Amino acid sequence: MVEKAYEKLLERSREISALESVARLLHWDQQTYMPEKGQESRSQQRALLARLIHERTASPELRRLLEEIEGSGRLESLGPEARANVRELRREHDRQFKVPAALVEEIEKTAALSYRVWVEAKGNDDFDSFAPRLEEIVRLSKAWADAVGYQHERYDALLDTYEPGMRAAEIEPLFESLRSELVPLVRRIVGARCEVDTSMLRRKFDAATLRRFGKGIARDLGFDFKAGRLDASAHPFCCGVSITDVRITTSAEWSNPIDALFAVIHEVGHGLYHQGLLPRHRGTPMGSAVSLGVHESQSRWWENFIGRSRSFWEHYFPKLQEAFPGLMDDVAPDRFYGAINAVRPSPIRVEADEVTYNLHVLLRFELERDLLSDRLDVRDLPEAWNGKMEHYLGIRPAASGEGVLQDVHWAHGMFGYFPTYTLGNLYAAQLDRRIRREIPDLDAMVGRGEFHELLAWIREKIHRHGSRYRPAELVRRATGEALSTTPLVDYLQGKFGPPYGG
Amino acid sequence: MVEKAYEKLLERSREISALESVARLLHWDQQTYMPEKGQESRSQQRALLARLIHERTASPELRRLLEEIEGSGRLESLGPEARANVRELRREHDRQFKVPAALVEEIEKTAALSYRVWVEAKGNDDFDSFAPRLEEIVRLSKAWADAVGYQHERYDALLDTYEPGMRAAEIEPLFESLRSELVPLVRRIVGARCEVDTSMLRRKFDAATLRRFGKGIARDLGFDFKAGRLDASAHPFCCGVSITDVRITTSAEWSNPIDALFAVIHEVGHGLYHQGLLPRHRGTPMGSAVSLGVHESQSRWWENFIGRSRSFWEHYFPKLQEAFPGLMDDVAPDRFYGAINAVRPSPIRVEADEVTYNLHVLLRFELERDLLSDRLDVRDLPEAWNGKMEHYLGIRPAASGEGVLQDVHWAHGMFGYFPTYTLGNLYAAQLDRRIRREIPDLDAMVGRGEFHELLAWIREKIHRHGSRYRPAELVRRATGEALSTTPLVDYLQGKFGPPYGG
Repeated sequence: MVEKAYEKLLERSREISALESVARLLHWDQQTYMPEKGQESRSQQRALLARLIHERTASPELRRLLEEIEGSGRLESLGPEARANVRELRREHDRQFKVPAALVEEIEKTAALSYRVWVEAKGNDDFDSFAPRLEEIVRLSKAWADAVGYQHERYDALLDTYEPGMRAAEIEPLFESLRSELVPLVRRIVGARCEVDTSMLRRKFDAATLRRFGKGIARDLGFDFKAGRLDASAHPFCCGVSITDVRITTSAEWSNPIDALFAVIHEVGHGLYHQGLLPRHRGTPMGSAVSLGVHESQSRWWENFIGRSRSFWEHYFPKLQEAFPGLMDDVAPDRFYGAINAVRPSPIRVEADEVTYNLHVLLRFELERDLLSDRLDVRDLPEAWNGKMEHYLGIRPAASGEGVLQDVHWAHGMFGYFPTYTLGNLYAAQLDRRIRREIPDLDAMVGRGEFHELLAWIREKIHRHGSRYRPAELVRRATGEALSTTPLVDYLQGKFGPPYGG
Repeated sequence: MVEKAYEKLLERSREISALESVARLLHWDQQTYMPEKGQESRSQQRALLARLIHERTASPELRRLLEEIEGSGRLESLGPEARANVRELRREHDRQFKVPAALVEEIEKTAALSYRVWVEAKGNDDFDSFAPRLEEIVRLSKAWADAVGYQHERYDALLDTYEPGMRAAEIEPLFESLRSELVPLVRRIVGARCEVDTSMLRRKFDAATLRRFGKGIARDLGFDFKAGRLDASAHPFCCGVSITDVRITTSAEWSNPIDALFAVIHEVGHGLYHQGLLPRHRGTPMGSAVSLGVHESQSRWWENFIGRSRSFWEHYFPKLQEAFPGLMDDVAPDRFYGAINAVRPSPIRVEADEVTYNLHVLLRFELERDLLSDRLDVRDLPEAWNGKMEHYLGIRPAASGEGVLQDVHWAHGMFGYFPTYTLGNLYAAQLDRRIRREIPDLDAMVGRGEFHELLAWIREKIHRHGSRYRPAELVRRATGEALSTTPLVDYLQGKFGPPYGG
């Protein structure tokens, strides 16, 4: 009986998942190949799919199946995989079912409008024109969170969208500890006034050659091009259409062409996670990535902990010199390594280095949590932003376009998203410490361009589990330790402390 | 009341149409960019969409709305556009509703299996291994036609899938008249033994340059690249994702590279039809192409009547010489014109010229009509095929792979499709005769590479009407004459008669 209900539940899950998969392909196509006049009909197609997905996720049939399984007293007997699937499908169902359709519609309309207002406001450095929209979005986000419900604080309901099971009260001490270490580190680095020459990164690298080079790295890292693609788009992203159809993109436009390579490595990190999910769980939570934070741990681990390491460029720097004859012959490997790891406080998050990046995130987490709990008024946001920016990074944005208006997230109503970036860094550092203990000659392998064992380890510890465990539990099982800031702080101090006398 | 029901009907139509649009994009992606391991999940996505489309088209709600409108006695008052929409939505609903789900499923399964058997059988020239599958397909196609129903003969139900409202008894006299003219014409041409030199078409044209050249022609003809794309795929096709998102492809692999240009012009013909539909009718029959025959009239008119004309190459041949420096300098324009219009009976339909092509189609029409009405047994098909081939074209296929097994259509269960190719030629010839009367200096315009007036004419006469009229009525209104073979025969005699002493 309960087995039959569970089978039916999985069928429903696979159907919802197939629709989500189609929706992701529509998004990918829109960002890569869709002709510009296709916009209007594409919006209609995506709205329709979103509706079909919502209807199915919130359906009475799904609820009935969940209730039958949960109420049977026999859920345990189905095993841990089934328990994870039921848990996650219940979570998704509740989130979709509890929110009135009228509120969902209002949020969508407001987000679409406020996105357009934000684009203009950002261009004009005009926060005041965006403020009324943002107030509206905050109001609706609160209503949404209240409808979904939460145990401790309202912000948790939003955070849970991106990082299931995580709570603001868990994040707070982690982020505070991080801040207390990073603010002084940044001050020491800035105070040392070591000017790092990064000009060689902006030389004339032929775009097609650079792209081939990036593709070669992707292949070396283990990205399966029979189950994936690399294309160009305005902003790099990874789209897991399905486990065996994973599409990453890189941008053709970079102020610094070498950044294109790191973007590829970053997206490959996301892509490897998709490709490492188990096909037998296709279409169920067990076959899906567990959270944005864990996703980000994968992209950032490959990009920063591996891709910006000395060993990595021991292998690839001679190849880079070879691929661009004459262009980098005068550059010593050490200078290149210094350039790709230069630390410079900037008002812009997406341009930030490994050290300052987390402070950008901390600032946003604190501000949006305050907004959602009525401790901060939208009108006071720019001043709060600039004050924190000055305190954390020692800089004040010259205008709101490069300050409080820089990110699209809030215009889309995506509160609770930002912390996943730093959670990703924390997870990555913890995984990095563990893998280096278990594979002591990791650096030597990377220096030889051998990534097979690294990928096998991360697949075993992270990828193959899908959504079996909640993020914190997944990382605890992989590393044997509870989440803490020590590995990330040790890593950053070790990498960025010494050259500046830290 | 009836207005409200009609509005609701259109809403349903737009939803079905959006799903179909998504399904077409999935197909396009599969043929162009999808990584090979994406196959399995893509099949699941497409099957799910097909089911959603079927459910909605066959739904009791749609039937209720149709009945309410049709039974109101006020359909006339809604105007001609509404009448066309109701007529076509009723037709689609009936076709989906009347066929039992079990039969649809059996047909799909059998078609999938028989496709695989066909691929192998064709490769091995082994008709016997395919025969049992084909018998099964014929049986299921009969059952399908009987479920849908027909007035005169069973074949009409199948034909109506591709050419709404057309009947075999209407086609028969047209095709017989065509045969009585074309068989002697082919004999005269073959008897004249004029060897046309076509070797210059197989010179080493740089693929990228040829592609740019084809893209330039597409743009000249009026294809809007802001509402469309040109990509590469194994076989050329046109995919109208929506009216403002039309994607054509060409193949990178041709034994004769110049054929790639004609493939582009052919697909542009289809693409212009899509782009010429009216956006205000998006998602309804009034905003959809009316039939495969009319579609084919567009592709073949641009490809053959325009693209293989002397005037066309007066404009483009010097440009071709310029685009490929040195490659075609020794070729006189007349020799090129002769080569691209060489007539040579071949056993293979897709390699056939303008004259022999129709005989390939006639043969298939006669055979499949006989199969469906039990006048021909599958086991006797190869001999019937070869006999007709000898009679019509004077050749006997050496093996079944280049004979009865050459086309995929029957393996897919697509009976009733073939005649639309020749119907397209008939429509095209009739339109061509008319447009030359209304635009007397058409040849001069084409010779200057000016296509704007031609496109405006065909848009006015054909494209903008969508499915307002049934194909025969549409062409009658556009040309002032009932469908006949005279224009096509006159055109073929005029173009291909004289040089061979016809």
